[in-house]
Amino acid sequence: MINTPYLLFLGDAPDALAAKVAQGIKDWRPDASLGQFRMDGCNADMGLPDMTIAEAVESGCKTLVIGVANRGGVISDAWKTVLVEALDAGMDVASGLHNLLNEEAVLVEAAERNGRALHDVRIPTVDYPIANGKKRTGKRCLAVGTDCSVGKMYTGIAMEREMLNRGMKATFRATGQTGILITGDGVPLDAVIADFMAGSVEYLTPDNDADHWDLIEGQGSLFHVSYSGVTMALVHGGQPDALILSHEPTRTHMRGLPEYQQPTLQQLRDTALPLAQVGNPNCKVVGISVNTQHMSEDEAVAYLAGVEAEMGLPTVDPFRHGAGRLVDALDAV
Amino acid sequence: MINTPYLLFLGDAPDALAAKVAQGIKDWRPDASLGQFRMDGCNADMGLPDMTIAEAVESGCKTLVIGVANRGGVISDAWKTVLVEALDAGMDVASGLHNLLNEEAVLVEAAERNGRALHDVRIPTVDYPIANGKKRTGKRCLAVGTDCSVGKMYTGIAMEREMLNRGMKATFRATGQTGILITGDGVPLDAVIADFMAGSVEYLTPDNDADHWDLIEGQGSLFHVSYSGVTMALVHGGQPDALILSHEPTRTHMRGLPEYQQPTLQQLRDTALPLAQVGNPNCKVVGISVNTQHMSEDEAVAYLAGVEAEMGLPTVDPFRHGAGRLVDALDAV
Repeated sequence: MINTPYLLFLGDAPDALAAKVAQGIKDWRPDASLGQFRMDGCNADMGLPDMTIAEAVESGCKTLVIGVANRGGVISDAWKTVLVEALDAGMDVASGLHNLLNEEAVLVEAAERNGRALHDVRIPTVDYPIANGKKRTGKRCLAVGTDCSVGKMYTGIAMEREMLNRGMKATFRATGQTGILITGDGVPLDAVIADFMAGSVEYLTPDNDADHWDLIEGQGSLFHVSYSGVTMALVHGGQPDALILSHEPTRTHMRGLPEYQQPTLQQLRDTALPLAQVGNPNCKVVGISVNTQHMSEDEAVAYLAGVEAEMGLPTVDPFRHGAGRLVDALDAV
Repeated sequence: MINTPYLLFLGDAPDALAAKVAQGIKDWRPDASLGQFRMDGCNADMGLPDMTIAEAVESGCKTLVIGVANRGGVISDAWKTVLVEALDAGMDVASGLHNLLNEEAVLVEAAERNGRALHDVRIPTVDYPIANGKKRTGKRCLAVGTDCSVGKMYTGIAMEREMLNRGMKATFRATGQTGILITGDGVPLDAVIADFMAGSVEYLTPDNDADHWDLIEGQGSLFHVSYSGVTMALVHGGQPDALILSHEPTRTHMRGLPEYQQPTLQQLRDTALPLAQVGNPNCKVVGISVNTQHMSEDEAVAYLAGVEAEMGLPTVDPFRHGAGRLVDALDAV
């Protein structure tokens, strides 16, 4: 577990997209996001107070979280200077970068000197088992997408928040680096060894109360040829009782694969449901979440209504309009 | 690449099943299997000449291959004594065990002392790319199974041999430890990091002559919840032009999963083909391979004829009756 609250490190982010990890944390853990640290040339802004390291410690920040992608695949000396200052001032440092904090001698030395932790959420720290496929108690919901990066994580967290607000038992289960930094825990599924993928998802979603829901963070897409194996491990390791179909309607092709078209929501339903029923014969598709961020409000409302009529399932943008109707659908399972 | 010919190390195998890696090598590389090394208590026998280390070197063996599973998850001192003797006598050592040769100090020291190689085919030695999904030249065939361990590897090798005998261009592409020890090369797919699985399969099956076929070794099953993600990476990373359905009709449940029933061949076809067509819209199911080892000849012949009539596809046991009809079907694609 990663100590909160956080100071969000935006570094020298060239634009807002480069700081999308910080954006996710700020969107979903505003309580834990006390301030931001920006360097010269930073063009991202979370709208949080700008803090020096000393001010962050003074405000109670426990962990500096790297909320920005690094350029050129290295952790620059300018970054290291700030991270060492944070460690020396008594904060932990957490990162989801491919470049590991724990492989940088100057950071390891500073962490040891101060008795602080370096959290690399990119890589697993657990030896996961091979999946055994045994039925587990409690219920599970998984978002599956027509493509990567269509809002599956946001859907899962939005549903968890709505369920907790209603007094339901629910836990968002993070399977990606941003999700892990938001919740402080989870499985970095894309970095797990192939044989243990489904087992890591079983590990993440153990037996629970009969009326408890795990909201499992989806990854990739069954239709994305680069990552479909990871998605498959979620579909079978997660044993979902409920599937949410997730879609981003303005994409012109599969993310990163210009030769590939997105499937329709019907194709996604007809592919994902029979596969999920191998692991859980009672699995149902209960709703659709659409990421309408690139649509006007009128366009979004019209599009959602059209999909809902066509698919016969509650269809919402949970970030824009709330996850209430998806939770209603889950509650009826 | 692993130097041949081999001395097959059977150690103290309690039964024939424990030595199935050696059996696979002996079945498919009889040319490279010069002898066997058996210790006290060994109950496996490949029917090869028993050799001491000195006799093996004298006969020209270049590599001692561990063809047996180790007991208790450790490489015993008795084994190490033999392996060091082999290294001292000038042989390399190759292994697909989870316990790595390269993590045993006494073996590493003996290999360095003698300038010999320790091949751990369990783990990747290449940094594989993320799959890009681009269409590659040449053709590819993948066996997909109703379950794990139903004969997919044997099917692929049998087809390669038949094609080479006919003067066709063909390469068996190993994706498992036994396959790698048989061919001397390949991708240990079950040990690849999740994000790079499909990319490792693309790497394994690059652009080739238009009339060349890769026979890709299948793994797991789309219906085996422990390993289906690995299978999915083969279906999408392999971009197969042709699928072979593989089946073992005497199984009472999915291997290692007593709660799970095997799918029918129809279910396998209807699941695998649309998924494969995401990566290659022209993919076809061309034939069925059945592992009839637990059936009498009469039973096998009757069963194969029944499946062929039902499915409308050439149906053979390629190990028992030859892969000719599967190759005919491939040649028609």
